[in-house]
This record gives sequence, structure tokens and C-alpha cells, in this order.
Amino acid sequence: MLHPVILSGGSGTRLWPLSRQNQPKQFLALMGDHSLYQETVQRANQLPAAQPPVTVCSEEHRFMVGEQLQAVGIASGGILLEPVARSTAPAIALAALHVLARDPEATLLVMPADHLIADETAFREAVSAAARLAEDGWLVTFGITPDYAETGYGYILRGEGLGEGGYRVQRFVEKPDLATAERYVAEGVYAWNSGMFLFRARRYLDELAQHAPAILQAAQAAYASSKADLDFMRIDRDAFAASPSDSIDYAVMEKTSRAAVVPVSCGWSDIGSWSSLWSVAERDGDGNRYEGDVIAVDTRDSLVRASDRRMIATIGVEDLVIVDTADATLVARKDRVQDVKAVVDRLKAAGRTEHLFHRRVYRPWGSYDSIGVGSRFQVKKIVVKPGAALSLQKHAHRAEHWIVVSGVAEVTCDDKVFDLHENESTYIPLGSVHRLRNRGTEPVELIEVQSGHYLGEDDIVRLEDVYGRS
Amino acid sequence: MLHPVILSGGSGTRLWPLSRQNQPKQFLALMGDHSLYQETVQRANQLPAAQPPVTVCSEEHRFMVGEQLQAVGIASGGILLEPVARSTAPAIALAALHVLARDPEATLLVMPADHLIADETAFREAVSAAARLAEDGWLVTFGITPDYAETGYGYILRGEGLGEGGYRVQRFVEKPDLATAERYVAEGVYAWNSGMFLFRARRYLDELAQHAPAILQAAQAAYASSKADLDFMRIDRDAFAASPSDSIDYAVMEKTSRAAVVPVSCGWSDIGSWSSLWSVAERDGDGNRYEGDVIAVDTRDSLVRASDRRMIATIGVEDLVIVDTADATLVARKDRVQDVKAVVDRLKAAGRTEHLFHRRVYRPWGSYDSIGVGSRFQVKKIVVKPGAALSLQKHAHRAEHWIVVSGVAEVTCDDKVFDLHENESTYIPLGSVHRLRNRGTEPVELIEVQSGHYLGEDDIVRLEDVYGRS
Repeated sequence: MLHPVILSGGSGTRLWPLSRQNQPKQFLALMGDHSLYQETVQRANQLPAAQPPVTVCSEEHRFMVGEQLQAVGIASGGILLEPVARSTAPAIALAALHVLARDPEATLLVMPADHLIADETAFREAVSAAARLAEDGWLVTFGITPDYAETGYGYILRGEGLGEGGYRVQRFVEKPDLATAERYVAEGVYAWNSGMFLFRARRYLDELAQHAPAILQAAQAAYASSKADLDFMRIDRDAFAASPSDSIDYAVMEKTSRAAVVPVSCGWSDIGSWSSLWSVAERDGDGNRYEGDVIAVDTRDSLVRASDRRMIATIGVEDLVIVDTADATLVARKDRVQDVKAVVDRLKAAGRTEHLFHRRVYRPWGSYDSIGVGSRFQVKKIVVKPGAALSLQKHAHRAEHWIVVSGVAEVTCDDKVFDLHENESTYIPLGSVHRLRNRGTEPVELIEVQSGHYLGEDDIVRLEDVYGRS
Repeated sequence: MLHPVILSGGSGTRLWPLSRQNQPKQFLALMGDHSLYQETVQRANQLPAAQPPVTVCSEEHRFMVGEQLQAVGIASGGILLEPVARSTAPAIALAALHVLARDPEATLLVMPADHLIADETAFREAVSAAARLAEDGWLVTFGITPDYAETGYGYILRGEGLGEGGYRVQRFVEKPDLATAERYVAEGVYAWNSGMFLFRARRYLDELAQHAPAILQAAQAAYASSKADLDFMRIDRDAFAASPSDSIDYAVMEKTSRAAVVPVSCGWSDIGSWSSLWSVAERDGDGNRYEGDVIAVDTRDSLVRASDRRMIATIGVEDLVIVDTADATLVARKDRVQDVKAVVDRLKAAGRTEHLFHRRVYRPWGSYDSIGVGSRFQVKKIVVKPGAALSLQKHAHRAEHWIVVSGVAEVTCDDKVFDLHENESTYIPLGSVHRLRNRGTEPVELIEVQSGHYLGEDDIVRLEDVYGRS
């Protein structure tokens, strides 16, 4: 059986201001309605004999993974929560252990959550070829046939043919300089190292045992001590932190004698920057890609992305990336977008939060968005998912007014519990113990007006919480 | 006595998205805390023997004028409300009539409300010189000594010297082509036509009587039928609409035998575009002017203006104008900013409102800002000025929740009248007759959550209104 393993480890500041630490690239709908993660699980789900996907992600993103899976109606094969980041080799080891517990003959298809694949047919054919090689004990990497001399990727030199469209890997090579990259492309026997792999789970663990035993031991110990929690597996922090941090490339693929490559040309991109998103996006006759409400005059070769309720007008510009969000707008020359890192570094240095969160913040129970702030008040739009509840809580410095604008909210306020319908409001005095719950089947939307001298998120005492945060 | 006359007629889309039809350039704080209008009245107020300024503006802007005057503590010499635009000659005729009623020997200093003057001392000296010429019966125009060969202005060729630093006007010339403009600058006897004038009020009306009698008659009839209303003079619509529309240049200055020019070099700019604002603004060593929260990486020769609660990041760009507002962002090449008109035309053609209003809308009683909108609700932040009241009104399609976050509101709801203090809320059911009033000395800030199927501004029946809108 084929078990897709989705690696969702990227922290993703390269698409700032759209990507934030708590909502990295893989969870963004960059083109169309679905996020890259959702597209990845859907792609995996359509493969022959594919089992429900196993996702490996950081604890911080667990509810986003759960929600995005649910939104596309795909059953989860497990969501493994990494307590700390240890790169890909240990993450895949956890997934292999998880899958082998149910299927001792499991084959793993390892896919990063944040890659784009335009040609699904070509990809499926490559997976079939790789699966046949894996049956013979090969550890297969997918090599992308290069379109141009990219210097930002590693390359794979193929050796003898193995049939099935595969080749023995002769050599992995580091990111080349431009002249070398041009030679690689011209020679036709090099492929980009995509970070996608296919092999038998057992085989991978055997290779780890041989080439990186400390990783295997740490993963085994961490998985054995992990705790199931809803759809999640909470991996033991101390045991997993003991693992060396290493990529599958260094730890296994470059050391094994059984590395194979299946070259594929499938419209692949890792969308490593705004310019690479521009280059894979459909564009108009002037080379522009617009998202949202854009009025453009004499604009060329640009990516312009407006956000909700706001328009962007451009005049006489070219080769720009313009990305607007609720709290930050980026205007960059398209060939300088890698320097978005410099902006993020300045935000970090200044102790700001625009690289960490969007103005709308996702929580296990739904989301909140700070739509208005004044000297002694804050207005939030709050959405509570069906069946969800905020913690039972109180605040030392603020009172709250709640006005339900959609759905039916169950309100607890000290010793009273009552329903609040659309267009009804209530008042939560300072110090009151309160809770908001949605027992219905539609989202509850409400407007919260906070009033007080101090309105920070840290003014909260959680008395009970279904999400284990109290 | 010197009576400053401030012409505030510009509709100002050239600084869109910051300028809007209901808040044109002269009312914007483009640099520093005060608007161009406020700077103009302050400049006028500091002149020797200056009387309170007379403002001529459109009805639409009357409360903005009143409020901005009050904010800088300058007494008004009258605010004349033009019911329709008829260009400068009729507007100045109204001001002359208004001033002569109090001061038969009045001298007028006519100043557009939206010009910048950096060197106030040079300007004051020019005004003194012009005042002495006006005593001898000259109609004086201020000619700006050109810095460069501008093709967007008319020029004035000076003739014989009149003493006092003034010259007889030999000829007014239309906007020249570049070669001609260059010649004008080289010859040293041409000045830019600034649109600022100084003359005896009686003299101006005499010249009108001779050269444009229809304008004088219409102005006299309109002023005679005007109605005083608070600080405002409501000019009679039909009578004023009968006036030909003509500029003072065409109607008087080019025809009189007594036109004089006082050349002056006073750091003048009409700020006719974002690029001209950039050119007069103080800039950093890389040629940039930043306003608000801007993080710039390798940015040069650009104007970047962030709005409240939002940051702008720039990377590797040059010669750009970036202006952000609550509902629209402009990104334009600096030498293409005149094409902002094309954007405004598209907004008009699409029946949109981003060229008419800001998201925050000023009203006689204060302002409102639509901070959140959903399918069946809208959240507004409302500010009611001390002593002000909204109309007594009702809505057919929406209910409203009000939460006071600052100040004390007097609420009328059907037959009840009560005070609502900070952190108190009330509910206005659909169909209820209601009013909001601020009887205190501090602004009332409140959050209004509207709920209903239809939330347009036109769902209002005004039963009583202190501002005459019912």
C-alpha cells in the first residue's frame, strides 16, 4: 500500500507578508481556493492504492492541518506533531514507524506540503515507476528535469538505467554556480533535487539503522512515548529533541548504495519566492498576475495581490511584486524578493509581530480579527466553529460586549448559561468567569468590543479548556 | 485693512488616493500636522494688519472648513458657500462684496487654499510690496521666480518697473512647450502665474463692471439673496448659477490696464501631483520621503506614505510613489503620477466610491468609519463632536447596537432619553426613532454594530436635523 507522507515543516517567511510564522506558505491559497497543503493531499489521494495521508507538522500548526484536511474531506492517516524541528530524516522516520504499525509492507511517498505540481498525470506516471523500483528495494528520489539553469537547487546526476524510467543515482551535487548550472542543463543527465521520495518504510528504517542510527533510536523512542490526542500524535519532546538534525539527503540518500532517481517533468515548483510564484502563475498579455481588486494602468510583468476590502492601483510600473495584507504591504522589485528576509529580520529586531501572525489569528476554536483599536477599546470579529468552544476564562483588566451577527452562541457568564441569537447582545463584566460555545452546525460570528485600560492577549486566566491550554 | 480671501474650490483628485472628492488636497495634512488650508489661513493671519480670513468653498466642504479653522484657533471672516462652481472671478467677487459690507476701503489678498509656501518671510515682503502698489490702484499678481522650465504653468512677462519691487504686466502667456519654457527661464523676466493676487476690493469690482459685467451682476444678486447660517453664508443658487464661469486671469487681469506683478521666490508649490509633493518634501540621503510606518530596503528617490495601523515594506525599488489609505493603495512610477486621473476615471466608470469618500466619512456632527463588514452586519466606529447631535432618524432595514467606548452619549430611543457612559451599551430596534447626542465637552466615541439584510447609507428617514438635512 502507498502511504503519502506530507512534510509540513517549513516556517516560510519567503512569501511574507502573506506567509507568517503561524501560517506558513503551505497553508496559503496562493492560486485558487485551496492551499498548497490541500493540493498536496488531494494529489496524493488521487494516486492508485493511496492510503490516507500522514502529515508531519509542528505543534503550532496542528489545528490548521486538521481544519484544512477536513475542508477538503480527506481522511487523515495521522498528524504527527513534532515538538521541535529536526529536519527531514527524523520526521520521515516518525512517519515510517507510524505507518508500519498498521502496514508492515508499507511504501512511503514523501512529499513536502508546499510544492506546486501543474501536470498531475506526469507526476502519477513517475510515482508508478518509482513504486515498481521501490518493490525491488530502491530508495527513489524524484528528479525534476530542469527548464533553466537554476542556481538555487541541488542537482542529481543520473547513472545506469534501471528500467521503469529510473536510473541509479551517480551523484548528488550541491547548488552550482551559474556556469555549472548551465552545463548541467545542457548535458541532459542532471535533474533538480525535488525533495520528493518513494521507498518501502522498512527499507528506509534499515538504511537509517546503518547510516544514522542515532536518528533511528531517537525517533523510535520518541514515537514509542508519543500520546494520541484526537487525530494527533504528540511526539515525546525530550526523546525527539535527542535526535541529530539532518536531512534525508545527507543522512540516507547520499550514503545508501540503492539510491535511484526517476526524472520527471511535471510543472514542478517549490515556490521559493514571490518571483517564482509569478513565473508559474497564469499571466495576462502584459505579463501580469492580479489577485483581488486591482486597477492597473500601463503595468507590466508584475504580480499584484490585493487583500479583502482594499484595492490596489498601479501606474506605469514593471517587474514589481505588490502584496497587500490587513496589516502590511510589500512593494518589491521582482528580482529582489529574496530580500524579504531583510524585512523580516528588521521586524524581529524591533520586537514586532507582523512576521509571526496575521491580523486574523487562527485558534483551535475558530479565529479572531482585531478590526478596530483605540486608546481604551478594541473591536474584534470572532468566528467560532460549529461544535467548538473557547476556554472558560476571565480577564483582570477588561470588560467585553458581545453582539452575535450570525449563528447561535451559548454564553456562560458566571452562574448563568444562555443562548444568544443573531442580533442579540450581552455584557461580560470585568472579572466575570465566561465562555463562548457554538453548539450549532453553522459558524457563530460575533463582534466583541473590549473596554479597559489594558487589552493585551495575555490578560487571560483559563479555568478550563477542551484544547488543553488551561 | 488687509482681508485674506482663501479660495478652496479645488476638487483635487490629483493626490488620489489621499485626496477624495469630499476631502480634497487643501484639507489634507500632507506634511506635518496641519492641512494646506490651515497653513494658508495661519500664513494669512500672521501678516501685518490682517483681518480674519474669508473662505470661499463648496457647500460640500463647509463643515470641514469650519472644523479646521476652529482647530487652529483662527477666527473666521466668513465662509461663503458656492452652490455651484463658477471659477475664480465670481468667487472673488463674492468675497469682495462680503468684505466691503464691513470695510469700504478693504484690500484683498487672494490665496488658493492648496498651495505650499516654504519661505514665509519672502512671502510677507512680497505682500507688503504688493499692498503699496494696490494703494496706487494696481491689481497685483504674485509671479513666482521659476526654478526650472515647468511646462504646466502659465507665465507672466514683466514690463516697466513700478518701484516697490513691482512691474507692470507686459503679457500673460499660456503654458509653454519645453523649449519656450527654457527660454523664459533663461531670460529672467518671466515668472510663473501663481494664482495669488492683491488689490483693493472696490477696484476689483470696478474692473469687473468694465470687463465682465455679467459676472458682477450675478455675484451681486447672489450675495444679496444669500442667507447667513452659523458661520456660513449660503449663496443663492439660481442667482449665482447665472454667472459666467471664468477665471480672474481671463476676466480681469488680462484685460485691465493696471495689472502689476511682484516677482517672488518663496519656496512656492501648488503641489499639483505626488511627484511635486516629493520634490518639495524634505528627503533622506537616498532621496526618499517616508510618512508613517515604513520599512525600506535599498529604496531610492521614492515617496512612501503608510496609513494608520498598517506598515509598508519596500525592497529594491526607485522612483516610486506608494500611498496607502484604508481602502486603496497607489503604486506609481513617479514620472507617471499624472495618470492617477486614469484610475479615478475607471473608478467613476465602474460606479465605485473610492474617488469620492475615504472609508472614514466626515459629517457635520463628527465622523464614521466602516471598520468591518459581513454579509448581514456592519461595524462602524462613530465619533460625535462635543455639542453635536446626529439627526433624529429611523431605519427600515437595520437594527443597531451602540457601545460607548469614550465620553457620555445622550441616547434617544422612541420615548426614552438616557445617558450612556463609557463601557455601556444599548440596542436600537429596527424602526425605532432614535438620536445620538454629545452634550459633553469631550468627543463621544462609540462602536455601532448594524444588523440587517440591507445596510446601505440610504436606509434613513431623518425626522429632525440641526444641520438642515431632514
